[in-house]
Amino acid sequence: MRIPFEDMKSEFKRIFLKYGISEEKAEICARTHAETSRDGVYSHGANRIPRFINYVKKGWVDIKAEPTKEKEFGALAVYNGNFGIGVTNAFYCADRAMELAKKNGIGLVGLKNTTHWMRGGTYGLYAAKKGFTAICWTNTESNMPPWGGEKPKLGNNPFVMAAPANNGEPVLLDMAMSLYSYGKLQSTRLAGKKLPFPGGFDKEGKLTDEPEKIEESMRMLPIGYWKGSSFAFLLDVLVSILSDGASTQDMDKIAKGSCGGCSQIFIMIDPLKISSQAYINEILNKAKAYIKTADGKEIRYPGEGMSNAFKENSSKGVLVDDTVWAEIKSL
Amino acid sequence: MRIPFEDMKSEFKRIFLKYGISEEKAEICARTHAETSRDGVYSHGANRIPRFINYVKKGWVDIKAEPTKEKEFGALAVYNGNFGIGVTNAFYCADRAMELAKKNGIGLVGLKNTTHWMRGGTYGLYAAKKGFTAICWTNTESNMPPWGGEKPKLGNNPFVMAAPANNGEPVLLDMAMSLYSYGKLQSTRLAGKKLPFPGGFDKEGKLTDEPEKIEESMRMLPIGYWKGSSFAFLLDVLVSILSDGASTQDMDKIAKGSCGGCSQIFIMIDPLKISSQAYINEILNKAKAYIKTADGKEIRYPGEGMSNAFKENSSKGVLVDDTVWAEIKSL
Repeated sequence: MRIPFEDMKSEFKRIFLKYGISEEKAEICARTHAETSRDGVYSHGANRIPRFINYVKKGWVDIKAEPTKEKEFGALAVYNGNFGIGVTNAFYCADRAMELAKKNGIGLVGLKNTTHWMRGGTYGLYAAKKGFTAICWTNTESNMPPWGGEKPKLGNNPFVMAAPANNGEPVLLDMAMSLYSYGKLQSTRLAGKKLPFPGGFDKEGKLTDEPEKIEESMRMLPIGYWKGSSFAFLLDVLVSILSDGASTQDMDKIAKGSCGGCSQIFIMIDPLKISSQAYINEILNKAKAYIKTADGKEIRYPGEGMSNAFKENSSKGVLVDDTVWAEIKSL
Repeated sequence: MRIPFEDMKSEFKRIFLKYGISEEKAEICARTHAETSRDGVYSHGANRIPRFINYVKKGWVDIKAEPTKEKEFGALAVYNGNFGIGVTNAFYCADRAMELAKKNGIGLVGLKNTTHWMRGGTYGLYAAKKGFTAICWTNTESNMPPWGGEKPKLGNNPFVMAAPANNGEPVLLDMAMSLYSYGKLQSTRLAGKKLPFPGGFDKEGKLTDEPEKIEESMRMLPIGYWKGSSFAFLLDVLVSILSDGASTQDMDKIAKGSCGGCSQIFIMIDPLKISSQAYINEILNKAKAYIKTADGKEIRYPGEGMSNAFKENSSKGVLVDDTVWAEIKSL
């Protein structure tokens, strides 16, 4: 079904207020989840509301907690998220990194003891619209075996890069280190389909495109095989070092759900200190046009699919699964 | 065959001096190429010397040029490489970024109009040994189609991340956005073998593990399919913006060989401003140990393969292909 954006946002806000979240934070979280669905990232928009509320009920997310500064040096700062709401913690630290970047050209904020930031791209887009270049990532609990191993001991550690806004058509990378998410395995299985490409190993160690076999083995495939495994490892150790925070294995012990106690990095760069928005727009437009000359019908620049979903969901109403919407209404 | 490290380095230095490179730069470049082979990255060590000399002869690399500062603001700086030697330009900018990081906690240097930096990991290791965290990348000329396209319009844009040194056992990611390099396709074909995993599309658009079919189609596979394609795009636009330098398509027009006129980013972070080396070592050792519990015999942390090659090549002499060594001796 389709729900008008404002109605969806209002419904989310109603729920957040009901569970005791402050007016200000309820507004931010409702807008973020609704925008995430509107941009076509359904898995982290409407679909995540029930789980988020469940975490609040369990005390895994402390809705009263505020981020507190632990360290600051030059263009670096470290914050403690105190297990507060992941979305508002992340916006706070993105803002702080942009403040540092305004002053120093670049700023890095490490955030520890935070909770799920939902869609990582949110903070890339947020920065891009303000004219910043963003490089952000989070670690997660173990959900992917390292290359050569059988048991999940690495997070899929989503990584975000955003270019400064280009006339409202953002250029955004938001990718996990696993080729597919468990959500994608589930939805593919429920649709009775196979994955477009092998997405993991079965219990016998053979690559497979059958989602149920990967759900059974928990042997998700890293992007680029050994490469994504190494990238995930580096993202975890760097975020632990630079936020003074929990690593993937620490989170496995914390065991407060998806991304409970995770660590995040927000690197923001103010390119207008060394360039101009007109020149940046020229670079982006040229790059977009160039890849379209590669002779394919389906060539899209990173962020184009999101822009297409934005347009359709804005005009027709935001797509949401019937059962998800029913669950949300019942909260 | 195997050549003792010092003999290999001396031979490289002899060649560089013969072609007019200064004593200081010849020493740096000889050491860098010899160390690259010693660490097991043969493709960018000894194997690249003949091509580098060819570029010098053609005037594509200006051995007299020095990097010049174009812009500086806070912790950001932009340098013009003036088509000088890629290796010495890159070391210069890595040093500058570390200077900025010492002062500000983090520093970013954009380098434009430079030439091939050879092994990207060199600059990650260099920073790591000095206790810095490094995030560096370069763009390249087109060598990979964007996802959904047939013609190469994206670079494979190598990306480097290094953790601060851990008792001389560095943790390093050094990866191109294509699953394999053209060098790997060639060596696999010459050995009469197939690739371990499909590495590209044949001319009919089918995934294939036969290297000669990918060499023919030039349809290299990005890591993680659409993900690596998007990552390569972002790396190119961000490096163009932040270095004020040539993009992949600009380099296609410059047409001065592999990486002629490329743009690079050096982000250096001084973690000791917010942490301690003892704590960092603890994080790294824990992370290395954790992935080894994933039940596989071949699990290695990123950089472990390099450390193994280092040990073997240091004790037995550095491995080099007979015909490559003969060509080097003839220069």
